[in-house]
Amino acid sequence: MPAALPSFVQLIEVGPREGFQFEGMGDPDRIATHRKVELATALAQTGLRTIQVVSFVSPKAVPQMADAEAVCAALPHVEGVEFTGIYLNDAGLARALAVSGIAIKAELLLSASEAFALRNQRRTFADELAMQRTMADAYRDAGMTIDTANIMAAFGSNMEGDIPVATVLEKIGALIDIAGEAGGAVTHVNLADTMGWANPALVQRVVDAVRSAWPNLRIGLHLHDTRGLAIANVHAALQLGVDRFDTGLGGLGGCPFAGNRGAAGNVATEEVVFLCRELGIETGVDLDALVACAQLAADIVGHPLPGKLLTASLHRPN
Amino acid sequence: MPAALPSFVQLIEVGPREGFQFEGMGDPDRIATHRKVELATALAQTGLRTIQVVSFVSPKAVPQMADAEAVCAALPHVEGVEFTGIYLNDAGLARALAVSGIAIKAELLLSASEAFALRNQRRTFADELAMQRTMADAYRDAGMTIDTANIMAAFGSNMEGDIPVATVLEKIGALIDIAGEAGGAVTHVNLADTMGWANPALVQRVVDAVRSAWPNLRIGLHLHDTRGLAIANVHAALQLGVDRFDTGLGGLGGCPFAGNRGAAGNVATEEVVFLCRELGIETGVDLDALVACAQLAADIVGHPLPGKLLTASLHRPN
Repeated sequence: MPAALPSFVQLIEVGPREGFQFEGMGDPDRIATHRKVELATALAQTGLRTIQVVSFVSPKAVPQMADAEAVCAALPHVEGVEFTGIYLNDAGLARALAVSGIAIKAELLLSASEAFALRNQRRTFADELAMQRTMADAYRDAGMTIDTANIMAAFGSNMEGDIPVATVLEKIGALIDIAGEAGGAVTHVNLADTMGWANPALVQRVVDAVRSAWPNLRIGLHLHDTRGLAIANVHAALQLGVDRFDTGLGGLGGCPFAGNRGAAGNVATEEVVFLCRELGIETGVDLDALVACAQLAADIVGHPLPGKLLTASLHRPN
Repeated sequence: MPAALPSFVQLIEVGPREGFQFEGMGDPDRIATHRKVELATALAQTGLRTIQVVSFVSPKAVPQMADAEAVCAALPHVEGVEFTGIYLNDAGLARALAVSGIAIKAELLLSASEAFALRNQRRTFADELAMQRTMADAYRDAGMTIDTANIMAAFGSNMEGDIPVATVLEKIGALIDIAGEAGGAVTHVNLADTMGWANPALVQRVVDAVRSAWPNLRIGLHLHDTRGLAIANVHAALQLGVDRFDTGLGGLGGCPFAGNRGAAGNVATEEVVFLCRELGIETGVDLDALVACAQLAADIVGHPLPGKLLTASLHRPN
């Protein structure tokens, strides 16, 4: 079993973006801009190299991200650390391109659940494809080369139930084509368990299928802990050699559009780092500093976070 | 990887005993006897066959279990379901033997961490061995045959750090000897991660070592979720064919004596049942009924429980 474990795992911290987006639902001013910056600044000292801090989405749909530009303007410059944001359409990308302080990633995004796409973005599969073509053009116009494809709801949907693996492969294939037409080349695919239906066997099935179809694609996972299995899914993926995960400190995050008010957030960054540490896998992250950040995040949101490790002792005498 | 998965997993529900013991710290009257009985009664309808409801321990040390006899007297009789309790010395066993309504288990118990034994029971290793001999005599006097050995702190200790696997084996061996001298035979060993230091690789190392030494012993695990890895440890154990787990609904439980106030509880029963269901493993438990019990438990303790699934939807259209 441990033979396939990677020696190094790359973690993409998405807690500030996903968490504050989720936490602010219904009260956009609850988390002050300067506190978002405070957390991002602290995270930049932990060894995490990529920290997603904002969404450039409609302030009408997600008012709690209306201060995205203000957050970006206040971010520190830290050698070796990039702050990132997300953008779900060309207008969002244009906003992101207009600010300094964040790294723009040329990524495409499709949902494997049409009902989720309709609910989340009010787009059919056809609308989504059209938007990704628009995004691809916009990246090309900005002189950027697409390298990453993201698939949401890759492991199941609250609206449609099981998602056929064939649908996941079809969506990846579509994004590879769109990227290629725009002069890019998809080298990474991120598979998101947006609604928390993954389990270790399903992780293996989907990862195996993607690898069979595209042996050279690097796979990353974005796992929500909605039903408590996220860390088991991470471990199953590690056993398959998967070496890239989106995580949220303290378990911040989740999906406010998943039709599930009680949804827990992301797999907790500090618990993935702890798991990796115990398994002898490097992450480059200072676990004590990260736990302090998770405690800071709990202070900022003003309630306990779902993570367990952030309130436990890390002290072990030997 | 799925080749070794068991087809059926036995779950021992320990949430009522461990959870209410933990929850009531400092306020013994906070959870009324009738509510403990209400939860036990509901759990008896879920398909769980063994439900641990009380501790027969000193009311001075654990005042919130002072109503153990009253709880037992009010338990319903449900065909195929046994309610159980724990007792850490001969006085506790005598109390348990004096009540009806619960099944008495002839089990022995040692800690693999002497510092923990000192803190938890004020016993040295030598004191613990002497007490287990006393317990063995008491079981024999009661006409009972010892069949189970429990090892606490088998995966690490907050006080001593790593626990050598050799120490775990030594403790199991000692209990096998004591049971044999009393006319019993240990057929089951439960390994407890009392302080939440286990990880999937360590689970494999310890399980493999126990199996190498005693190939015919059935192994059960009791995994606390102190640092967020419990469900990954359950999955690792399932991959090894382990088919018996102590669990706590809603994540109730934990160890009030572990020197860690923020300690999370047990791995959540409903999440283990969900994991098993998704992996095609039978547990005999009705997941919807169990989730309703976890919600009842949250109502009884009066605050959210650490489990995730109990607040998520189980509805999947296909």
